[in-house]
Amino acid sequence: MQKKSRGGIFVISAPSGAGKTTICKKILSRNANIKQSVSFTTRKPRKGEKNGEDYYFVAQKTFQQMISRNEFIEWAEVHGNFYGTSRKKFEGLVSSGFDVILDIDTQGARQIRNSFSEGVFIFILPPSIKVLRERLQDRKSNTKKDMQRRLKRAAVEIKDYNMYDYVIVNDILGDSVKKLEAIITARRMSSDRVDPKWIKDNFLR
Amino acid sequence: MQKKSRGGIFVISAPSGAGKTTICKKILSRNANIKQSVSFTTRKPRKGEKNGEDYYFVAQKTFQQMISRNEFIEWAEVHGNFYGTSRKKFEGLVSSGFDVILDIDTQGARQIRNSFSEGVFIFILPPSIKVLRERLQDRKSNTKKDMQRRLKRAAVEIKDYNMYDYVIVNDILGDSVKKLEAIITARRMSSDRVDPKWIKDNFLR
Repeated sequence: MQKKSRGGIFVISAPSGAGKTTICKKILSRNANIKQSVSFTTRKPRKGEKNGEDYYFVAQKTFQQMISRNEFIEWAEVHGNFYGTSRKKFEGLVSSGFDVILDIDTQGARQIRNSFSEGVFIFILPPSIKVLRERLQDRKSNTKKDMQRRLKRAAVEIKDYNMYDYVIVNDILGDSVKKLEAIITARRMSSDRVDPKWIKDNFLR
Repeated sequence: MQKKSRGGIFVISAPSGAGKTTICKKILSRNANIKQSVSFTTRKPRKGEKNGEDYYFVAQKTFQQMISRNEFIEWAEVHGNFYGTSRKKFEGLVSSGFDVILDIDTQGARQIRNSFSEGVFIFILPPSIKVLRERLQDRKSNTKKDMQRRLKRAAVEIKDYNMYDYVIVNDILGDSVKKLEAIITARRMSSDRVDPKWIKDNFLR
Protein backbone atom coordinates (compact mmCIF):
# COMPACT_ATOMS: atom_id res chain seq x y z
CA MET A 1 0.00 0.00 0.00
CA GLN A 2 2.67 2.48 1.00
CA LYS A 3 5.26 3.96 -1.30
CA LYS A 4 7.99 1.87 0.28
CA SER A 5 10.85 3.65 -1.43
CA ARG A 6 11.31 6.45 1.13
CA GLY A 7 11.04 6.54 4.90
CA GLY A 8 9.74 9.49 6.87
CA ILE A 9 11.87 12.43 8.03
CA PHE A 10 11.48 13.58 11.64
CA VAL A 11 13.32 16.71 12.68
CA ILE A 12 13.60 17.08 16.44
CA SER A 13 14.88 20.18 18.22
CA ALA A 14 14.93 21.24 21.85
CA PRO A 15 16.78 23.57 24.16
CA SER A 16 19.73 21.90 25.88
CA GLY A 17 18.40 20.12 28.97
CA ALA A 18 14.88 19.42 27.65
CA GLY A 19 15.64 15.70 27.44
CA LYS A 20 15.75 15.29 23.65
CA THR A 21 18.70 12.88 23.57
CA THR A 22 17.14 10.55 26.16
CA ILE A 23 13.79 10.47 24.32
CA CYS A 24 15.49 9.73 20.98
CA LYS A 25 17.60 6.93 22.48
CA LYS A 26 14.46 5.29 23.92
CA ILE A 27 12.64 5.53 20.60
CA LEU A 28 15.56 3.99 18.73
CA SER A 29 15.91 1.11 21.18
CA ARG A 30 12.21 0.28 20.80
CA ASN A 31 11.82 0.63 17.01
CA ALA A 32 14.14 -1.20 14.61
CA ASN A 33 12.71 0.67 11.61
CA ILE A 34 13.61 4.09 13.02
CA LYS A 35 17.19 5.31 12.67
CA GLN A 36 18.92 8.44 13.80
CA SER A 37 21.11 10.26 11.36
CA VAL A 38 24.52 10.62 13.07
CA SER A 39 25.80 14.20 12.80
CA PHE A 40 29.32 15.37 12.02
CA THR A 41 30.83 17.73 14.58
CA THR A 42 34.00 19.62 15.29
CA ARG A 43 33.47 19.51 19.04
CA LYS A 44 35.62 17.23 21.18
CA PRO A 45 34.07 13.91 22.28
CA ARG A 46 32.62 13.91 25.81
CA LYS A 47 33.40 11.01 28.11
CA GLY A 48 31.72 7.85 26.81
CA GLU A 49 30.86 9.24 23.39
CA LYS A 50 31.80 7.03 20.46
CA ASN A 51 32.84 8.09 16.98
CA GLY A 52 30.29 6.97 14.37
CA GLU A 53 27.69 6.35 17.05
CA ASP A 54 27.10 9.61 18.92
CA TYR A 55 28.80 11.78 16.30
CA TYR A 56 31.39 11.64 13.57
CA PHE A 57 34.14 13.70 15.20
CA VAL A 58 36.10 15.60 12.57
CA ALA A 59 38.63 18.45 12.42
CA GLN A 60 37.52 21.98 11.66
CA LYS A 61 39.32 21.82 8.31
CA THR A 62 37.50 18.65 7.23
CA PHE A 63 34.17 20.19 8.21
CA GLN A 64 34.89 23.34 6.18
CA GLN A 65 35.77 21.22 3.15
CA MET A 66 32.50 19.30 3.50
CA ILE A 67 30.60 22.62 3.59
CA SER A 68 32.31 23.87 0.43
CA ARG A 69 31.55 20.57 -1.36
CA ASN A 70 27.85 20.92 -0.38
CA GLU A 71 27.99 17.63 1.49
CA PHE A 72 25.62 18.76 4.27
CA ILE A 73 21.85 19.00 4.02
CA GLU A 74 22.09 21.28 7.07
CA TRP A 75 24.83 22.60 9.29
CA ALA A 76 25.08 25.10 12.11
CA GLU A 77 27.50 26.63 14.58
CA VAL A 78 26.51 26.21 18.21
CA HIS A 79 28.60 27.49 21.14
CA GLY A 80 31.62 27.78 18.81
CA ASN A 81 31.37 24.21 17.48
CA PHE A 82 30.07 23.06 14.12
CA TYR A 83 27.43 20.40 13.59
CA GLY A 84 26.16 19.04 10.27
CA THR A 85 24.14 16.24 8.64
CA SER A 86 25.77 14.41 5.73
CA ARG A 87 23.57 14.31 2.65
CA LYS A 88 24.94 10.91 1.64
CA LYS A 89 24.38 9.22 5.00
CA PHE A 90 20.95 10.79 5.40
CA GLU A 91 19.75 9.87 1.90
CA GLY A 92 21.12 6.36 2.35
CA LEU A 93 18.85 5.80 5.35
CA VAL A 94 15.72 7.47 3.94
CA SER A 95 15.94 5.74 0.57
CA SER A 96 16.35 2.38 2.33
CA GLY A 97 12.89 2.98 3.80
CA PHE A 98 13.93 3.81 7.37
CA ASP A 99 12.11 6.52 9.26
CA VAL A 100 14.94 8.91 10.06
CA ILE A 101 15.30 11.16 13.11
CA LEU A 102 17.39 14.29 12.77
CA ASP A 103 18.39 15.61 16.17
CA ILE A 104 19.36 19.17 15.19
CA ASP A 105 19.05 22.75 16.35
CA THR A 106 16.59 25.38 15.12
CA GLN A 107 19.04 26.78 12.55
CA GLY A 108 19.45 23.32 10.99
CA ALA A 109 15.71 22.65 11.19
CA ARG A 110 15.02 25.79 9.17
CA GLN A 111 17.35 24.57 6.41
CA ILE A 112 15.58 21.16 6.29
CA ARG A 113 12.19 22.87 6.29
CA ASN A 114 13.16 24.69 3.11
CA SER A 115 14.50 21.66 1.28
CA PHE A 116 12.44 18.67 2.50
CA SER A 117 8.77 19.56 2.44
CA GLU A 118 7.77 16.06 3.58
CA GLY A 119 9.64 16.47 6.90
CA VAL A 120 7.76 16.37 10.21
CA PHE A 121 9.04 18.91 12.73
CA ILE A 122 8.91 18.28 16.47
CA PHE A 123 9.99 20.62 19.26
CA ILE A 124 10.60 19.30 22.77
CA LEU A 125 10.09 21.61 25.73
CA PRO A 126 10.90 21.16 29.40
CA PRO A 127 7.81 21.55 31.62
CA SER A 128 9.15 24.85 32.97
CA ILE A 129 12.23 27.08 33.03
CA LYS A 130 12.74 25.99 36.64
CA VAL A 131 13.01 22.33 35.61
CA LEU A 132 15.34 23.28 32.75
CA ARG A 133 17.62 25.10 35.20
CA GLU A 134 17.63 22.11 37.55
CA ARG A 135 18.43 19.69 34.73
CA LEU A 136 21.31 21.85 33.52
CA GLN A 137 22.64 22.12 37.09
CA ASP A 138 22.70 18.33 37.38
CA ARG A 139 25.14 18.14 34.48
CA LYS A 140 28.30 18.47 36.52
CA SER A 141 30.42 19.53 33.54
CA ASN A 142 28.56 22.82 33.31
CA THR A 143 30.26 25.91 34.72
CA LYS A 144 28.10 28.85 35.77
CA LYS A 145 29.07 30.76 32.63
CA ASP A 146 28.20 27.72 30.54
CA MET A 147 24.84 27.54 32.24
CA GLN A 148 24.06 31.21 31.58
CA ARG A 149 24.94 30.71 27.92
CA ARG A 150 22.68 27.65 27.62
CA LEU A 151 19.73 29.39 29.29
CA LYS A 152 20.10 32.40 27.03
CA ARG A 153 20.25 30.16 23.98
CA ALA A 154 17.24 28.15 25.25
CA ALA A 155 15.10 31.30 25.21
CA VAL A 156 16.19 32.06 21.62
CA GLU A 157 15.34 28.53 20.49
CA ILE A 158 12.00 28.35 22.33
CA LYS A 159 10.89 31.52 20.51
CA ASP A 160 11.00 29.42 17.33
CA TYR A 161 8.62 26.71 18.61
CA ASN A 162 5.85 27.59 16.14
CA MET A 163 8.10 26.78 13.18
CA TYR A 164 7.49 23.16 14.26
CA ASP A 165 4.46 20.95 13.51
CA TYR A 166 4.36 19.42 16.99
CA VAL A 167 5.36 20.38 20.53
CA ILE A 168 6.02 17.76 23.21
CA VAL A 169 6.32 18.99 26.78
CA ASN A 170 8.74 16.51 28.33
CA ASP A 171 7.45 16.09 31.86
CA ILE A 172 7.34 12.30 32.26
CA LEU A 173 9.85 10.52 30.01
CA GLY A 174 7.66 7.47 29.25
CA ASP A 175 4.76 9.68 28.16
CA SER A 176 6.99 11.77 25.91
CA VAL A 177 8.35 8.64 24.20
CA LYS A 178 4.78 7.43 23.54
CA LYS A 179 3.80 10.84 22.18
CA LEU A 180 6.73 10.87 19.77
CA GLU A 181 5.88 7.32 18.69
CA ALA A 182 2.28 8.41 18.04
CA ILE A 183 3.53 11.25 15.81
CA ILE A 184 5.74 8.82 13.85
CA THR A 185 2.91 6.24 13.57
CA ALA A 186 0.45 8.90 12.40
CA ARG A 187 2.87 10.08 9.74
CA ARG A 188 2.98 6.56 8.30
CA MET A 189 -0.81 6.77 7.73
CA SER A 190 -0.47 10.04 5.80
CA SER A 191 -2.58 9.87 2.64
CA ASP A 192 0.28 11.18 0.51
CA ARG A 193 2.18 7.98 1.34
CA VAL A 194 -0.53 5.83 -0.29
CA ASP A 195 0.40 4.55 -3.74
CA PRO A 196 -2.32 5.72 -6.20
CA LYS A 197 -1.53 2.67 -8.33
CA TRP A 198 -2.35 0.38 -5.39
CA ILE A 199 -5.73 2.12 -4.98
CA LYS A 200 -6.47 1.82 -8.69
CA ASP A 201 -5.43 -1.83 -9.04
CA ASN A 202 -7.14 -2.90 -5.86
CA PHE A 203 -10.41 -1.00 -5.86
CA LEU A 204 -11.13 0.87 -9.07
CA ARG A 205 -11.24 -1.65 -11.86
CA MET B 1 -0.09 24.40 28.11
CA GLN B 2 -2.86 23.60 25.64
CA LYS B 3 -5.64 25.95 24.64
CA LYS B 4 -8.16 23.95 26.60
CA SER B 5 -11.22 25.68 25.22
CA ARG B 6 -11.71 23.52 22.10
CA GLY B 7 -11.27 19.81 21.44
CA GLY B 8 -10.04 18.34 18.18
CA ILE B 9 -12.28 17.49 15.23
CA PHE B 10 -11.77 14.09 13.56
CA VAL B 11 -13.74 13.40 10.40
CA ILE B 12 -13.85 9.69 9.52
CA SER B 13 -15.20 8.31 6.26
CA ALA B 14 -15.11 4.85 4.70
CA PRO B 15 -16.98 2.78 2.16
CA SER B 16 -19.74 0.67 3.71
CA GLY B 17 -18.15 -2.55 4.99
CA ALA B 18 -14.69 -1.13 5.70
CA GLY B 19 -15.23 -1.47 9.43
CA LYS B 20 -15.50 2.20 10.37
CA THR B 21 -18.33 1.79 12.90
CA THR B 22 -16.52 -1.01 14.77
CA ILE B 23 -13.27 1.00 14.94
CA CYS B 24 -15.09 4.09 16.22
CA LYS B 25 -16.97 2.10 18.88
CA LYS B 26 -13.68 0.63 20.15
CA ILE B 27 -12.04 4.06 20.29
CA LEU B 28 -14.96 5.53 22.22
CA SER B 29 -15.04 2.68 24.74
CA ARG B 30 -11.31 3.15 25.43
CA ASN B 31 -11.13 6.97 25.61
CA ALA B 32 -13.45 8.96 27.85
CA ASN B 33 -12.29 12.26 26.37
CA ILE B 34 -13.31 11.30 22.83
CA LYS B 35 -16.96 11.61 21.86
CA GLN B 36 -18.81 10.82 18.68
CA SER B 37 -21.22 13.35 17.33
CA VAL B 38 -24.55 11.53 16.89
CA SER B 39 -26.04 12.21 13.44
CA PHE B 40 -29.63 12.95 12.55
CA THR B 41 -31.14 10.66 9.94
CA THR B 42 -34.39 10.03 8.09
CA ARG B 43 -33.65 6.33 7.66
CA LYS B 44 -35.57 3.78 9.74
CA PRO B 45 -33.79 2.33 12.79
CA ARG B 46 -32.17 -1.09 12.22
CA LYS B 47 -32.70 -3.80 14.82
CA GLY B 48 -30.88 -2.88 18.04
CA GLU B 49 -30.29 0.77 17.10
CA LYS B 50 -31.24 3.30 19.73
CA ASN B 51 -32.53 6.83 19.21
CA GLY B 52 -30.06 9.39 20.58
CA GLU B 53 -27.29 6.82 20.70
CA ASP B 54 -26.77 5.45 17.18
CA TYR B 55 -28.72 8.25 15.48
CA TYR B 56 -31.42 10.77 16.12
CA PHE B 57 -34.20 9.29 13.98
CA VAL B 58 -36.39 12.03 12.55
CA ALA B 59 -39.06 12.44 9.88
CA GLN B 60 -38.18 13.73 6.43
CA LYS B 61 -40.14 16.92 7.14
CA THR B 62 -38.20 17.65 10.35
CA PHE B 63 -34.92 17.09 8.53
CA GLN B 64 -35.90 19.50 5.75
CA GLN B 65 -36.81 22.14 8.32
CA MET B 66 -33.45 21.74 10.00
CA ILE B 67 -31.71 22.20 6.62
CA SER B 68 -33.64 25.39 5.90
CA ARG B 69 -32.81 26.73 9.38
CA ASN B 70 -29.10 26.06 8.73
CA GLU B 71 -28.97 23.75 11.75
CA PHE B 72 -26.52 21.28 10.14
CA ILE B 73 -22.78 21.78 9.74
CA GLU B 74 -22.99 19.06 7.07
CA TRP B 75 -25.68 16.89 5.58
CA ALA B 76 -25.91 14.42 2.71
CA GLU B 77 -28.29 12.07 0.98
CA VAL B 78 -27.10 8.45 0.85
CA HIS B 79 -29.09 5.63 -0.75
CA GLY B 80 -32.23 7.79 -0.56
CA ASN B 81 -31.88 8.61 3.13
CA PHE B 82 -30.69 11.87 4.69
CA TYR B 83 -27.92 12.18 7.28
CA GLY B 84 -26.76 15.35 9.02
CA THR B 85 -24.68 16.70 11.92
CA SER B 86 -26.36 19.22 14.20
CA ARG B 87 -24.31 22.37 14.66
CA LYS B 88 -25.57 22.83 18.21
CA LYS B 89 -24.73 19.31 19.40
CA PHE B 90 -21.38 19.33 17.61
CA GLU B 91 -20.31 22.72 18.97
CA GLY B 92 -21.46 21.72 22.44
CA LEU B 93 -19.00 18.81 22.47
CA VAL B 94 -16.04 20.61 20.86
CA SER B 95 -16.35 23.70 23.05
CA SER B 96 -16.50 21.49 26.17
CA GLY B 97 -13.00 20.29 25.21
CA PHE B 98 -13.90 16.83 23.92
CA ASP B 99 -12.14 15.44 20.88
CA VAL B 100 -15.06 14.80 18.54
CA ILE B 101 -15.36 12.08 15.91
CA LEU B 102 -17.65 12.75 12.97
CA ASP B 103 -18.55 9.49 11.23
CA ILE B 104 -19.76 10.90 7.90
CA ASP B 105 -19.57 10.25 4.16
CA THR B 106 -17.32 11.98 1.64
CA GLN B 107 -19.97 14.58 0.73
CA GLY B 108 -20.27 15.61 4.37
CA ALA B 109 -16.49 15.55 4.83
CA ARG B 110 -16.07 18.02 1.99
CA GLN B 111 -18.47 20.43 3.70
CA ILE B 112 -16.54 20.19 6.99
CA ARG B 113 -13.22 20.63 5.16
CA ASN B 114 -14.44 23.97 3.84
CA SER B 115 -15.72 25.28 7.16
CA PHE B 116 -13.44 23.77 9.86
CA SER B 117 -9.83 24.17 8.79
CA GLU B 118 -8.59 22.62 12.05
CA GLY B 119 -10.32 19.28 11.27
CA VAL B 120 -8.27 16.10 10.84
CA PHE B 121 -9.56 13.89 8.01
CA ILE B 122 -9.22 10.11 8.11
CA PHE B 123 -10.28 7.61 5.45
CA ILE B 124 -10.65 3.93 6.29
CA LEU B 125 -10.11 1.35 3.56
CA PRO B 126 -10.72 -2.40 3.53
CA PRO B 127 -7.54 -4.36 2.70
CA SER B 128 -8.99 -5.31 -0.71
CA ILE B 129 -12.18 -5.24 -2.78
CA LYS B 130 -12.46 -8.99 -2.18
CA VAL B 131 -12.58 -8.49 1.59
CA LEU B 132 -15.09 -5.66 1.17
CA ARG B 133 -17.34 -7.97 -0.86
CA GLU B 134 -17.07 -10.70 1.77
CA ARG B 135 -17.87 -8.30 4.59
CA LEU B 136 -20.93 -6.98 2.76
CA GLN B 137 -22.11 -10.54 2.06
CA ASP B 138 -21.91 -11.36 5.76
CA ARG B 139 -24.45 -8.63 6.48
CA LYS B 140 -27.53 -10.77 6.05
CA SER B 141 -29.86 -7.83 5.52
CA ASN B 142 -28.22 -7.05 2.18
CA THR B 143 -29.99 -8.11 -0.99
CA LYS B 144 -27.98 -8.64 -4.18
CA LYS B 145 -29.20 -5.32 -5.56
CA ASP B 146 -28.26 -3.61 -2.30
CA MET B 147 -24.79 -5.12 -2.51
CA GLN B 148 -24.26 -3.90 -6.11
CA ARG B 149 -25.30 -0.41 -5.05
CA ARG B 150 -22.91 -0.43 -2.09
CA LEU B 151 -19.97 -1.65 -4.17
CA LYS B 152 -20.59 0.98 -6.83
CA ARG B 153 -20.79 3.66 -4.18
CA ALA B 154 -17.62 2.32 -2.50
CA ALA B 155 -15.66 2.91 -5.70
CA VAL B 156 -16.96 6.50 -5.92
CA GLU B 157 -15.98 7.17 -2.30
CA ILE B 158 -12.56 5.52 -2.53
CA LYS B 159 -11.67 7.81 -5.46
CA ASP B 160 -11.85 10.68 -2.94
CA TYR B 161 -9.27 9.16 -0.55
CA ASN B 162 -6.69 11.87 -1.19
CA MET B 163 -9.03 14.57 0.10
CA TYR B 164 -8.18 13.06 3.52
CA ASP B 165 -5.08 13.65 5.66
CA TYR B 166 -4.71 10.02 6.68
CA VAL B 167 -5.59 6.60 5.30
CA ILE B 168 -5.97 3.54 7.54
CA VAL B 169 -6.16 0.16 5.83
CA ASN B 170 -8.37 -1.86 8.18
CA ASP B 171 -6.87 -5.33 8.03
CA ILE B 172 -6.54 -6.23 11.72
CA LEU B 173 -9.06 -4.40 13.92
CA GLY B 174 -6.75 -3.94 16.93
CA ASP B 175 -4.04 -2.40 14.76
CA SER B 176 -6.49 -0.02 13.12
CA VAL B 177 -7.75 1.17 16.51
CA LYS B 178 -4.16 1.85 17.62
CA LYS B 179 -3.43 3.74 14.41
CA LEU B 180 -6.48 5.95 14.86
CA GLU B 181 -5.48 6.57 18.49
CA ALA B 182 -1.99 7.58 17.30
CA ILE B 183 -3.51 10.11 14.89
CA ILE B 184 -5.66 11.57 17.67
CA THR B 185 -2.72 11.66 20.12
CA ALA B 186 -0.46 13.32 17.54
CA ARG B 187 -3.08 15.98 16.87
CA ARG B 188 -3.05 16.90 20.55
CA MET B 189 0.68 17.72 20.23
CA SER B 190 0.08 20.05 17.31
CA SER B 191 2.05 23.27 17.81
CA ASP B 192 -0.98 25.41 16.96
CA ARG B 193 -2.64 24.06 20.10
CA VAL B 194 0.09 25.52 22.32
CA ASP B 195 -0.92 28.69 24.10
CA PRO B 196 1.62 31.43 23.16
CA LYS B 197 0.91 33.08 26.51
CA TRP B 198 2.00 29.89 28.31
CA ILE B 199 5.28 29.93 26.37
CA LYS B 200 5.88 33.58 27.16
CA ASP B 201 5.03 33.39 30.87
CA ASN B 202 6.96 30.17 31.40
CA PHE B 203 10.09 30.63 29.34
CA LEU B 204 10.56 34.09 27.89
CA ARG B 205 10.67 36.54 30.76
